[in-house]
Order: sequence, then structure tokens, then C-alpha cells
Amino acid sequence: MRVALLGAGTVGAEVGRVLLEKRETYSRRLGRPLEVAGVFVRDLSRPRKGIDAALLTNDASRLLDDPSIDIVVELLGVEQPAVDWISRALRNGKQVVTANKEVMAKHGPQLLALARENGVDLLYEASVGGGIPIIAPLKRDLLANDVSAVSAIINGTTNYILTAMSREGADFGDALRRAQELGYAEPDPANDVEGEDARYKLAILATLAFRAPVRRDDIYREGITKLTAKDFRYAAELGYAIKLLALAHRRDGGVQARVHPVLLPADAPLAKVDGVLNAIQVEGDLIGRVNFQGPGAGFPTTSAVIADILDAAQTVIGGRRASYAPEEAPAPIVAMSELVTRYYIRLTVIDQPGVLAQIATKLGDARISIASVIQKEADPTSNTAELVIMTHEAREASMQQALKAVADLPVVQEIGNFIRVEEQ
Amino acid sequence: MRVALLGAGTVGAEVGRVLLEKRETYSRRLGRPLEVAGVFVRDLSRPRKGIDAALLTNDASRLLDDPSIDIVVELLGVEQPAVDWISRALRNGKQVVTANKEVMAKHGPQLLALARENGVDLLYEASVGGGIPIIAPLKRDLLANDVSAVSAIINGTTNYILTAMSREGADFGDALRRAQELGYAEPDPANDVEGEDARYKLAILATLAFRAPVRRDDIYREGITKLTAKDFRYAAELGYAIKLLALAHRRDGGVQARVHPVLLPADAPLAKVDGVLNAIQVEGDLIGRVNFQGPGAGFPTTSAVIADILDAAQTVIGGRRASYAPEEAPAPIVAMSELVTRYYIRLTVIDQPGVLAQIATKLGDARISIASVIQKEADPTSNTAELVIMTHEAREASMQQALKAVADLPVVQEIGNFIRVEEQ
Repeated sequence: MRVALLGAGTVGAEVGRVLLEKRETYSRRLGRPLEVAGVFVRDLSRPRKGIDAALLTNDASRLLDDPSIDIVVELLGVEQPAVDWISRALRNGKQVVTANKEVMAKHGPQLLALARENGVDLLYEASVGGGIPIIAPLKRDLLANDVSAVSAIINGTTNYILTAMSREGADFGDALRRAQELGYAEPDPANDVEGEDARYKLAILATLAFRAPVRRDDIYREGITKLTAKDFRYAAELGYAIKLLALAHRRDGGVQARVHPVLLPADAPLAKVDGVLNAIQVEGDLIGRVNFQGPGAGFPTTSAVIADILDAAQTVIGGRRASYAPEEAPAPIVAMSELVTRYYIRLTVIDQPGVLAQIATKLGDARISIASVIQKEADPTSNTAELVIMTHEAREASMQQALKAVADLPVVQEIGNFIRVEEQ
Repeated sequence: MRVALLGAGTVGAEVGRVLLEKRETYSRRLGRPLEVAGVFVRDLSRPRKGIDAALLTNDASRLLDDPSIDIVVELLGVEQPAVDWISRALRNGKQVVTANKEVMAKHGPQLLALARENGVDLLYEASVGGGIPIIAPLKRDLLANDVSAVSAIINGTTNYILTAMSREGADFGDALRRAQELGYAEPDPANDVEGEDARYKLAILATLAFRAPVRRDDIYREGITKLTAKDFRYAAELGYAIKLLALAHRRDGGVQARVHPVLLPADAPLAKVDGVLNAIQVEGDLIGRVNFQGPGAGFPTTSAVIADILDAAQTVIGGRRASYAPEEAPAPIVAMSELVTRYYIRLTVIDQPGVLAQIATKLGDARISIASVIQKEADPTSNTAELVIMTHEAREASMQQALKAVADLPVVQEIGNFIRVEEQ
């Protein structure tokens, strides 16, 4: 299985590096060797970390027209020559994978038709939502549905800025500057903050979801630059969050698509998606609402590009897709007693001096240290008090042993509850 | 393409009804007719709404051994005869779809091996998370990753109860009773509240995610029955939510899997999943974290079962999966001016009597009615005040026209902002 990469920028270089680094794994999952056959770059002299210089070429024809190459992966990130090269690869009967939102938003329907004519696939999972699976789920997992709506947070830069404005009462200018300092916004942020990037992605999603071409120019667009700290404050008072949503609805046979700031009820799932995260909510006649959330840009995009490459490879191999890859390494099961985590303990004790010292000693004997203790309600009639203890990390086996010892203390009336903490 | 259904209980009857009702749509999406060839039921005398009585049979052999049947869909919901019938269908070279978590948790690896031996697929998207796509995304979209963790809310009954306890300070018993009254909990709730249902589902997820068999008995289990209103109160004070999580981790080659209540930081994505919703979070080396949320049971399960049927059908048809179904009906684009929604308007006005009446008149002229008005800060030096108006539903065209008229009023100094409301 021979793969050619076009472009070795941020995403391209990562895809190349991961394909080479995890070659063994991917070859095992496919059932045959997966090989990077060549990488097109404009500048041959620049070294590309993790990619053998012998693989580099500045002549795209050598990859596009090489009959031994099965899959072409376009990661140039610009409109041209990407469109021409994708078309040429499709005409040459190659499977094509692209992460290019501009190309798919402007030329998707034509390129997909060209792929069909040539009996190959054009896959574009990474063009929307970075690593989040959304294109394939729309094609496969939601195929039984008639989709009525797509509501999405698909621009991490603006969601980061809006989250900062909401949490810190910052104004747009300040929040933007901080996003720029942290690398979440470009020096020229217009494409993001004016909603243009979201418009490209919504065109791709709506076209697929509604099975009808929705072009970028069909989509109303309004950016976030006019929002002020006041709007966030008033919206919160009224029970709303403010988000830049990409919205597409199909009603009475027509499609309406728009990108603009909205007031969203504070308890709506999309209102809780904060920072650079992306989320896409799809509404269908059978499923109701389903929501896909995750990192919408950067390194995780590699996950989507390589998923498409592996899918294209399975198409080349033909026949049944592996529904359950054979076990790679039978894994030993780790016993619960080996768990290491923090613990919450609620217990009722006799309300007298020295009680905490006795409990701490028993925990200390099992090498468990206390992170915090809060004394809750005391009950004067029974002369008892309630303690809530949070521990530092401890082994489950030690914890169980310590709990027994604590329960046996005469000053301890009852261990009310004991809950493990999951830091995420 | 001939499909046989085994079972016409809640899910089975819905799948049958939808397959018949949307036959035209599905046949178009597949490119060939999709037909329900027969439905096994135990009791022939009971009428099944939406399913032709002539399709019913109480003799499963007539479906399992009929060479004209391509796809067998097992929706019996019990362990036997489901395992035997699935095996028989696989041996007879049929594609098999199942929604049976007990069967997949206990016999998944063996049945999937049997499917491979017979060159067919066994698909089981609906066995975990109802309508939420998670099995197919683990097989396809996350294939490039080595998965290190799965964290999931995969039991709607317990999540409903925990949400009620958290929001209303209810105790377990009261919350359970209410869930039972609303039909969210069974009369005998043990299977859900003791974590057994979640354990089955986690066995299926972990086995697939880690490519190593994880059996139900490998999974530590603890239910939610010991949680009290106090625990929720104290957890909230400490900044945590309490959730029943199904957790599986792969570390140092070993697998640890467990189902128990956890304290989860209140701002973690899973902490915000409330009510009967399900959510599955997957952590992989490339993607970081990705999160799938949606309805975990009931009617939406039909979406997952039929997605599997359509996928199996494409396998039978063979060759390239349709990556982009041809347009079904070119859809007219609805102009932004036709949008109907509620609006938030923030404006600065001269602080004097009668101002609101003037604004309300202009809005009324455009048939827009006001839902609420809040007067915010008044500025005595400039003699201005700020108003925040929420309207009832109105047409965008009317709104734009009204905004112009309002802006032209001498008492209106500035329309500060204007944001559309998206009720979700």
C-alpha cells in the first residue's frame, strides 16, 4: 500500500512522521504493509523532522502520475494547485484524502462527482472539526436519518475568545490580544473572527448532511467583533451564553444556513463547550440530537487524516472492512486493588478533641496522606460531627486496609461514604 | 437486498416500521431496493403496528436458512436463542446486525471470529449508547490512534437519578421513585443502579478500544445506592460533580476497567452530561480527547440499527462505499430575511418618560412584540439609560426594518448590539 503526501507543512509533516513512526501498527491493522512512497515539498533544502530526505520531491508529477501509488494525500492547505492535483490523482484512479476546507467548500460536489466517475473515493474528514469524527459519521452512522439541523462550534479561535469574554468580563479587543499571544489567533484574525472559516466548514457539513449543495455564498455571515463585555453580562442575567454558531436547517424542502453570534440557553449542550474545543450537533428524524466534541485543530487533525488513509487503504485492498482487528497483544487485567487515585471519605465521629489525629494516624500507617478535611454539621444531641476528608493519591489496596482500621476506631461511629475521584 | 428481523419488541417493531416507512429513501441511498423479507415473533396472534402480518413467522429457521436473505437483524434482547441464531446466520454466510449487549459482552470475541471465518460482518453499533455512534467511530475514525482510556456515562437511568439528586438535593430513594414514575427506571432497577448494565457495555467498548478481550468479570463494579444528598452537597462545595462512570484504562500493557461512582471536577465535559443523556469519551495518542454525546436508549436506537443494516447492505453490494450519495432533491436556499427567531437588542436611549412607548410602537408597526425589557445602567451625566429588550419570535426582514425605524428615533442614541436567540 503506497501513500504519497502532497505538502509537508504543519499537518503534512506530522502525518508523515506518524505514518513512519507507527508503520508497524498500521500495517498490522490493515493486514499489509503501509508505505510512504514520497512527499511533495516546494523547498527541497528545508529539512523535515522525522521524514527521510530521500522521500522528498519537488516534482508533484512523479507522485500524481506514478501508477504504483495507491493513495494521494493532499495537505497543501491552499486552493491551487490543490484542486488541479486532486483532480489529476482522481483521474489517475487513485484514492484521495484531503484536509483542505477551502477546496471542499468551493469544489466539493464537483470533485466528489469526479471521484465517482473514476470509481475511487475522495475522503475529507480532516476538513471540518480537526480530529473530531463528523464526516464519516454523517456518511455512515447517521445514514438512516433525514437530517433536519446542524448546529456547530467549528472555529476554536472565536470560541476561545468568547469563553474568555464570558468568564473574565474581558472586552473583545483584550480577549483577542490574549488569544494571539497564546497562538490561538492569527496575527491577522479576520478569517476567524469574521466567521469566514466557519462558513467554509458549514458549507461542507450542510452539503453532506442535507445531500444538497450548499455553497459558501449561500451562507449568511456575521462575526464576533461587535460583542461587548456588557452583552455577556446581560445575556448571563437572562440565562443565556453567547456563542458563534454555524447553523444549517432544512425545513419545508428549503435549506437555511448562517454563521453569527447567538444567545444560547445556558444549559444547552453547545453552551457548555468552552475554550478551543469544537462541537458539532446533528439533529435527525430517528436519532433526535447527537453531539460530537473534541479538539478542532492542530495535532489531533493527524488522527482524522490517517483514519481516512487507512479507510482508503481498505478500499484498495477491497472486500470486507475489518470489523474487528485481531488482538494486537492480549492484555493482562490489572486488579482493582492496584488502582491509584484520590479519595473522598465522609464519616461520622464522636465530637471530641484528638479524633482527627487518630484518623490521620491510621491513614498515615497505610501511607495515605490527607489533602483537606472539612468538619461539616455537628450534632450536639448525639455529640457527633461529620468529617469530609479528601486524600492525596493512594493505592486502592492501602485505602481499603486503612478504611477498616479507621472504622475500628472507637471514636468513629460510621463511614458514611467513600468515593473515588477521577481528575479529567 | 433482503433483510430479516428476529424479534419485534420495542426496538424490533420500530426498526421494522421505519424500514418499511422509509423504504424509498433507503433504497435510493443504497442504489438498490431494500426489502423486509420476514420478521420472527414468538406470538403470531399479536398485531404489530406498521408491519404487514404476512411478514410475520414464528419459525426462525425459515429466515436463518433462507438463501435469499442477505442480512439478519437480531433484536431479541436475551442471551438465548440469540447467540445460537446469530451463529447460525453467520455460518450461513449472512451479514448480521445485533443490538444485544449481553450477547456481545459475553460472546463478542467468539462471534466476531466466527464472522471473519465466514467472510461476513457482525455489526453491533446499537449495543452501546443507543443511537450514539461509537462502535463504528472506534473501528474507523479512531483507527489511527492507540487508545489509552475510555470514560463513559452509558446508563441513562443512573445518570437521570444522579442529576436529580444533584439538582434537587433529593435522596437516592426519592430520585429512584420519580425515575420509575417517569419510566426512566424499571420496577426492578437493580441491573441499572448496581452498575451491571454499564459493565456489559464497558466490556464491549474496552474490548474494541484496546483490541484485547475485556470480559464482564474483569470489570470492578459498584452501584449508586449508597450515595446521599449530603455527598452531592459536599462534592459541590469542593468543586466536584458525582457521576457513575464506566472507566477503562490501558497502561503499561495492562488493562484496568471499572464501573463506580466518581467525584468528577465540575468543569469536566462528562460532569456536564445530565439527565438520561449518554456520553462516551475516548482518549488516544493522536486525537487527545474526543467526546460522543446523545440519547443512550429508546427510539434513537433505531438510528444505529438501521445504520448497521445499510452498512451491511453496502458490503453485500460490494466495492466502494458511496462516499457521497447523489443529491436527493436540490434544495432551494432560504434567504436570511426569512429567518424567524427571537432577538436580543441592547440600546442606549435618552433617559426620559415615554421612550419605551416610542420604541415599542416602532417594533409594533413591524408586528414585533416585546417579551421583556430590562433597564440597565443609567448615566446621569449624559442623561442616558441602557435598555435590553428581548422580543418574541419575529421575521428577520421585519426586524431589520424595525431596527432602522428605532435607530431613527431622536430619543435613541445608539443600538449597541442586536443578537439572535437560538433556543435549543
